[in-house]
Amino acid sequence: MPASQHQNPKSDIEIAQASKPRRIVEVAREKLGIAEENLEPYGHFKAKVSMDYIKSLKSKKDGKLILVTAISPTPAGEGKTTTTVGLTDALNHIGKKAMCALREPSLGPCFGVKGGAAGGGYAQVIPMEDINLHFTGDFHAITSAHNLLSALIDNHIYWGNALGIDQRRVAWRRVVDMNDRALREIVCSLGGVANGFPREAGFDITVASEVMAIFCLAKDLEDLKERLGKIIVAYTRDRKPIRASELNAHGAMTALLKDAIQPNLVQTLEGTPAFIHGGPFANIAHGCNSVSATTAALKLADYVVTEAGFGADLGAEKFIDIKCRKTGLKPDCVVIVATIRALKMHGGVAKADLKSENLKALEAGMANLERHIQNIKKFGLPAVVSINRFSADSDAEIALVKEKCKALGVEALMADHWAEGGAGAADVARAVVKTIDEGKADLKLLYPDDMPLLEKIRTIAKEIYRADDIVADKSVKDQLKTWEEMGFGKLPVCIAKTQYSFSTNPDAKGAPTGFTIPVREVRLSAGAEFIVAVCGDIMTMPGLPKVPSADSIDVNDQGRIVGLF
Amino acid sequence: MPASQHQNPKSDIEIAQASKPRRIVEVAREKLGIAEENLEPYGHFKAKVSMDYIKSLKSKKDGKLILVTAISPTPAGEGKTTTTVGLTDALNHIGKKAMCALREPSLGPCFGVKGGAAGGGYAQVIPMEDINLHFTGDFHAITSAHNLLSALIDNHIYWGNALGIDQRRVAWRRVVDMNDRALREIVCSLGGVANGFPREAGFDITVASEVMAIFCLAKDLEDLKERLGKIIVAYTRDRKPIRASELNAHGAMTALLKDAIQPNLVQTLEGTPAFIHGGPFANIAHGCNSVSATTAALKLADYVVTEAGFGADLGAEKFIDIKCRKTGLKPDCVVIVATIRALKMHGGVAKADLKSENLKALEAGMANLERHIQNIKKFGLPAVVSINRFSADSDAEIALVKEKCKALGVEALMADHWAEGGAGAADVARAVVKTIDEGKADLKLLYPDDMPLLEKIRTIAKEIYRADDIVADKSVKDQLKTWEEMGFGKLPVCIAKTQYSFSTNPDAKGAPTGFTIPVREVRLSAGAEFIVAVCGDIMTMPGLPKVPSADSIDVNDQGRIVGLF
Repeated sequence: MPASQHQNPKSDIEIAQASKPRRIVEVAREKLGIAEENLEPYGHFKAKVSMDYIKSLKSKKDGKLILVTAISPTPAGEGKTTTTVGLTDALNHIGKKAMCALREPSLGPCFGVKGGAAGGGYAQVIPMEDINLHFTGDFHAITSAHNLLSALIDNHIYWGNALGIDQRRVAWRRVVDMNDRALREIVCSLGGVANGFPREAGFDITVASEVMAIFCLAKDLEDLKERLGKIIVAYTRDRKPIRASELNAHGAMTALLKDAIQPNLVQTLEGTPAFIHGGPFANIAHGCNSVSATTAALKLADYVVTEAGFGADLGAEKFIDIKCRKTGLKPDCVVIVATIRALKMHGGVAKADLKSENLKALEAGMANLERHIQNIKKFGLPAVVSINRFSADSDAEIALVKEKCKALGVEALMADHWAEGGAGAADVARAVVKTIDEGKADLKLLYPDDMPLLEKIRTIAKEIYRADDIVADKSVKDQLKTWEEMGFGKLPVCIAKTQYSFSTNPDAKGAPTGFTIPVREVRLSAGAEFIVAVCGDIMTMPGLPKVPSADSIDVNDQGRIVGLF
Repeated sequence: MPASQHQNPKSDIEIAQASKPRRIVEVAREKLGIAEENLEPYGHFKAKVSMDYIKSLKSKKDGKLILVTAISPTPAGEGKTTTTVGLTDALNHIGKKAMCALREPSLGPCFGVKGGAAGGGYAQVIPMEDINLHFTGDFHAITSAHNLLSALIDNHIYWGNALGIDQRRVAWRRVVDMNDRALREIVCSLGGVANGFPREAGFDITVASEVMAIFCLAKDLEDLKERLGKIIVAYTRDRKPIRASELNAHGAMTALLKDAIQPNLVQTLEGTPAFIHGGPFANIAHGCNSVSATTAALKLADYVVTEAGFGADLGAEKFIDIKCRKTGLKPDCVVIVATIRALKMHGGVAKADLKSENLKALEAGMANLERHIQNIKKFGLPAVVSINRFSADSDAEIALVKEKCKALGVEALMADHWAEGGAGAADVARAVVKTIDEGKADLKLLYPDDMPLLEKIRTIAKEIYRADDIVADKSVKDQLKTWEEMGFGKLPVCIAKTQYSFSTNPDAKGAPTGFTIPVREVRLSAGAEFIVAVCGDIMTMPGLPKVPSADSIDVNDQGRIVGLF
């Protein structure tokens, strides 16, 4: 039995800092054929790839696209990013030219409860400290662009409000890349005439910004600017929408994002090239890395591994119905990540009891994985299941998962990239290549553009979540009708709901049935071009835990960052 | 007569974008002897110089230090940064090995009324768009470190408040690098139990952060961390100070600043190396670039030109009494920048009438320059006056300025680097070298460390501003006494007052007399290690004008930034 998770004595940051990375210009040249003049280096181990160069690749044939998604997440951990990195290394290990396209981690959670997000064990992207902290400054650029628009709105009102903005109807909040619950709801512009008109306002975390969603969906700088101009920032007293373009904000916002829009190139611990670019929230946005990085990667490698946020019900559905719909991208294979631990939690086992074999609970929890497999089939896509190995996994448990998957016509394989790097996921890589070679992918979007908005929500709820139906107040239905009349009827829908269950009850693990999905509220992201349907509580500004990660993050006497996980 | 300001048809950004810069690794190697492995490139034209390399230069002899300061600023413009850049180019032009050490521009004013701050005409540092926008991300890192501490304070209160912080006495605000008057005064933590305890709060602009001041005064990473830990963030009900170290915030803040603390190397239009690093507010902080950049530059070049904020009464005084006092730095020569236009404004001429010759007003306005010259002499430093040429300057006006300066034993020279680059300031450069060769500099700090705090304020007011006296309420005097009892009595004083006059009345131009300086409020920057004496209105968050610069900033069809001045 191989070494595996929970036995390795080294922390992620120790493994990452012990590595001897090659200079990124060499990785780019040797692995991707990119000359140095097409790179903007950020230190010796990170670089942006120039947009002009990416445009020059337009006529090249696309590689194969592999989407990594997962079962509904549990506190046991699944390892989606780790699998994305490990599978990419594994594809190289078996002789394929592969790279991955990941999301950038957010600074807020890094200092909160989550820690870093650059993979783990021997399946990491490096330099992990840089990637987890400021990286190449993309999120700071997005924060600045967002808050410039916020400042311009209040400034417009201050200097006479020629557009007639109703200060009670300013829809555009501010953002900060920090978990800061004190900023969720504020009253701003206090202190007298010189500070403006007091009004209710608030901050979201940067990844929840519509600018982030636009950044990730924009094809190029022109498309970015046009979408930024379309953002609806406020309404007049008679409900006329006011757009960012009316404040002439989109040009300056684009100037702030001009460098950021270029994909960031780094490498895995095994020297495999990796794009890490963009990171929209997977609830009020679509939760996938940037279109510019994914499309560029397809021109540069034969196999591109990318990931989508949360479980397949949320992440994969949005990847397909928003990102693929908008761009023409088509996955050739889907990898569904699971762990036996997490499946047992879906079967009702408490976290403390996960180390004991429990076939009954595992069988019950498999219902969650099975439903995700069925859903992926509905999209016309072939799937492979990758089981992220933990030391407590028993042979009988492993056999059970494989057998259950086989019954659904899907191969499930053990992966131990966490302990062994790419070699540990070679079986998964071979299965993925075989699946792609069979050429069975035939992407079907879940709903057509011209389906009414409410029907789109209902279709997702019934087909993917398996709800009996949706429920929505008249005000929600009226709002959707209004948007259809305004010309927004063809937009796709982005559902914001808990990631922990197919239903809106986070405690309903496994594969719940007999529930309805309440549509509490709908929001229009006119620049990102989707409708957000809020189903249940939605958190756009996390808080810090009692003992946040910041407590242990430090710089030691040798000037090295320590305590970052 | 040479071409000069207001005749040149090209804008700053057009001149900068038309330049053909050399790669920064070449500039570093050829001009400064820095090998590529000691640089962290940020694109091809910006780089950070590694702290380890800078430490390795410790035993090298220091070059000569030239401080550029100015008369009291007026709306006519003086051109301090432009002169700093032009003089550095001029020193190279006459065969000296020179570099400059400048402050980083702030993003907020760039989108507001001020525009960019990277010099002007043919005396600019490049790439000016990058320098004016995100540059190498230093200010974003400072913003993040500041706001992490803010979030940790409210989080501590939220989770039980073990330190007993009085939420009415939280001294640490939040920051954003944006001119946003709506955030000056807010109430945060609204919306119920989950969002914390509602309290009054607010945002400053990032350059006003104590983290920025600490960043600029810290000798190295260790010193930085220690100072961050000393920041007083709040008080208990019985007025006991709570420090950042008690929240265990300083380690994570240092991790966020680890890369930023390394000086940024760029070049002038003429290929002269330039450090641009740090940019604290010149009112509630000391307004000079970082100690790390200035001391590194002195090891790398024979002549280092640096600048201080606002006029010499504020900037030069703080440079000497705070930055020099703390570090042992000693200027060898001071250059005082003036324009004939601005001197005429000090003599009572309105901005619209500046193009006409007016010897009487000029003579009256000279009183401002004369007082600054006398002040520099009090510090034991020799001065050269550099008159930034404008096309309307008449021969008689020029002669008058030269004559008046000569009477004070100081040489005044015309400089036209704006139109001609380094060659245009060659006379000033020669005068500076001659002055340094005479070796007359003998720095005298204005007051000793052990002078009582109130006396320090009085000394600056009487000796530098020429006030009759200071006035302060009992509460201010008591506060200073308390700090002296707490051990802060040896700190220097940082005066926050209007830059437009020696007095606290911004309209009192020239060289006013017969006034007192009211000390309204005092603040303790325990990490930066100075006491701020607020004399008059103090603005720590600017607003945007009716038509902000953001209105014209854009990205054109070729992907180039336009409209940035």
